[in-house]
Amino acid sequence: MDCYFDHVATNPMREEVLEAMMPYFREEYGNPLSIYPLGMNARQAIEKAREQVAGLINAKPNEIIFTSSGAEANNFALRGVALARQYEGKHVIVTRMEHHSILNSARFLEKLGFTVTYLTPDRQGYIEPEAVRKAITDETVLISMIHASPEVGTIEPVKEIAEIARERKISFHTDAVVSTGNIPVDVKEMGVDLMSLAAHQFYGPKGAGALYVKEGQRIIPLIFGGIQEGGRRAGTENVPAIVGMGKAAELTISELDGRIEHVRRLRDRLKDGIMKVPNVHFTGHPEKRLPGHASFCVEFIEGESMLMMLAAKGIYVASGSACTSKALKASPVLLSMGIPSHVAHGSVVFTFGAGNTDEQVDYTLEEFPQIIQRLRELSPFTEGWGDMEEGESCIPKK
Amino acid sequence: MDCYFDHVATNPMREEVLEAMMPYFREEYGNPLSIYPLGMNARQAIEKAREQVAGLINAKPNEIIFTSSGAEANNFALRGVALARQYEGKHVIVTRMEHHSILNSARFLEKLGFTVTYLTPDRQGYIEPEAVRKAITDETVLISMIHASPEVGTIEPVKEIAEIARERKISFHTDAVVSTGNIPVDVKEMGVDLMSLAAHQFYGPKGAGALYVKEGQRIIPLIFGGIQEGGRRAGTENVPAIVGMGKAAELTISELDGRIEHVRRLRDRLKDGIMKVPNVHFTGHPEKRLPGHASFCVEFIEGESMLMMLAAKGIYVASGSACTSKALKASPVLLSMGIPSHVAHGSVVFTFGAGNTDEQVDYTLEEFPQIIQRLRELSPFTEGWGDMEEGESCIPKK
Repeated sequence: MDCYFDHVATNPMREEVLEAMMPYFREEYGNPLSIYPLGMNARQAIEKAREQVAGLINAKPNEIIFTSSGAEANNFALRGVALARQYEGKHVIVTRMEHHSILNSARFLEKLGFTVTYLTPDRQGYIEPEAVRKAITDETVLISMIHASPEVGTIEPVKEIAEIARERKISFHTDAVVSTGNIPVDVKEMGVDLMSLAAHQFYGPKGAGALYVKEGQRIIPLIFGGIQEGGRRAGTENVPAIVGMGKAAELTISELDGRIEHVRRLRDRLKDGIMKVPNVHFTGHPEKRLPGHASFCVEFIEGESMLMMLAAKGIYVASGSACTSKALKASPVLLSMGIPSHVAHGSVVFTFGAGNTDEQVDYTLEEFPQIIQRLRELSPFTEGWGDMEEGESCIPKK
Repeated sequence: MDCYFDHVATNPMREEVLEAMMPYFREEYGNPLSIYPLGMNARQAIEKAREQVAGLINAKPNEIIFTSSGAEANNFALRGVALARQYEGKHVIVTRMEHHSILNSARFLEKLGFTVTYLTPDRQGYIEPEAVRKAITDETVLISMIHASPEVGTIEPVKEIAEIARERKISFHTDAVVSTGNIPVDVKEMGVDLMSLAAHQFYGPKGAGALYVKEGQRIIPLIFGGIQEGGRRAGTENVPAIVGMGKAAELTISELDGRIEHVRRLRDRLKDGIMKVPNVHFTGHPEKRLPGHASFCVEFIEGESMLMMLAAKGIYVASGSACTSKALKASPVLLSMGIPSHVAHGSVVFTFGAGNTDEQVDYTLEEFPQIIQRLRELSPFTEGWGDMEEGESCIPKK
């Protein structure tokens, strides 16, 4: 049985989305900047998609800038705002829960003379709003915080932190790539100035992302060139992908409640079953977390082997963020949460989607314990630690 | 009759390209970084496309970095190399023939403390290699020059300039977005260090571009994040578009000679006919130019109206680069060539593709003179200049 439990890596695209895209691969191939009908049709399609994406997050259409990915949106937000506001101050705050597109952009800013504060989460991957308040200096111009973690599912207190930022006239960006499409996301209610999205996280196409930029927020382009996207993001628009992102947004608006209920139920069933395996720790926040997200650290095994064995049984999961999963290092996010390296190495993340079923959960609960047992029998890790009592575990078993 | 003569804005995508992309919209939806089969299939598809694109330009596969557009590739090249080599010197040379993605990136570099020399072309849009040699200083680390101009079709002496750059250990980038797929492009023969491409210029999809980066050339990423593209360009790969770019490259390799012959013949016929209209000037180089490219300046008319009237007759053309065509200003490229503003305003560019026919040329040659005559009768421009003799024209009629 094939079980795709890696929706945080990417989603299968909806057939309705592909249908919406098809005309723009064929007869409607115009460049949206061309002034004849073929160009105007493409332009109108983009503007319709802009309205659809704006509708998903309660923004105005002119606050949506299309990008090629969530990573591009994150780079654009962090560097674009920091550079636009550098004459007011050169201090930026991020967290150690961020995606590498934020962390590595922050490091680039350091090379340009910025100071960056990296906030450490608690054991559940949660950032306390007070920690942000304490980190603010008179030089702070930008705070960037992930909305929900792909690795441990924790949802951060974005609304509270946005309020703190607003009091101090600091721009606030949130990376909502993983949350959008999985929980309600409303820029007005959250009070954010900038927010990153990726279409393939909500059953849209790869190659389409967006940055929400609140009216009045200054930002310097990441990609300079023509007058596309109001001169804020150059390059011939990927019309079919943008149209697909719009359609995916529209579907998400009407289906979100049902999707949440479905994945939460499956996730809870899986979690209950997996937690019966000895020396397995549930990671991330128990309540403040994505509904379709279950993450664990399995002690005394090597994570890569676990993933391979699961894959051999048709169970497709991740060890953390897909963007770093090939690096074979313990996740920096888990380490920053205070999880010991040898435990973090056994990270496994199940993320559910609309296509998952109870049968898949049953099957996985049958296979998973056997695989872990087999791996522990084979693993050199158990030799040294075999006499460890469960109580010695570094993180409390929930 | 519908005549699409704006292949420099974008090309219709080939049906074979769409066919190659389709599986990656449906069943093969994996994230290329995932370690299970769904991910590995996507990874293999990208690597196959990398070989195909490398084959088109005679590069090694590991020298190809996929981007979302030609504009992104241009930004990446100019800023990535300038920043990587800034400790050797902070001088960059570009030309006034460049696309805005190069020119505006150059302006951004100026803000970071770089000095940029903008070389002026001659009346035919041609940059003399000697002008480049003279502009080089001990501080020069990068030269960027467009391979062929979208606005006037002129092909620049890239090979000669690459040689000059190599003598001085200066990195050399060429923007081959418009040339690739229209003329043979061979990075080894040209001797370039970096080269930008866009798939939709050779019947591939929008949303896929590439930067050729010669082995050993240092470059700092434009988009930071995950380990995609060897850590040089982050963001979940747009797998279907990359696959489509590969297929389009493969088709181009086998069909290029035939495409060139076809568009050259149509272009020459159109040019001969259009040049019979009084006070029309052929722009760009007469011989060193793209085979499917015919560009003119029509005196005593307003270019925008000409384009609208042509469009009303089903003849779709551009006034210059699509990326700036809505700006309603005379093309900076034409002005830099020394074409007077009032003449540059009447710019019209015909670019041919595989789907164009002799009948379309016949039809256009019938309609075009009538439209020009009608516009000149209506135009306020003629009032002041109506007594101008043809001999007074600022650029010699060919």
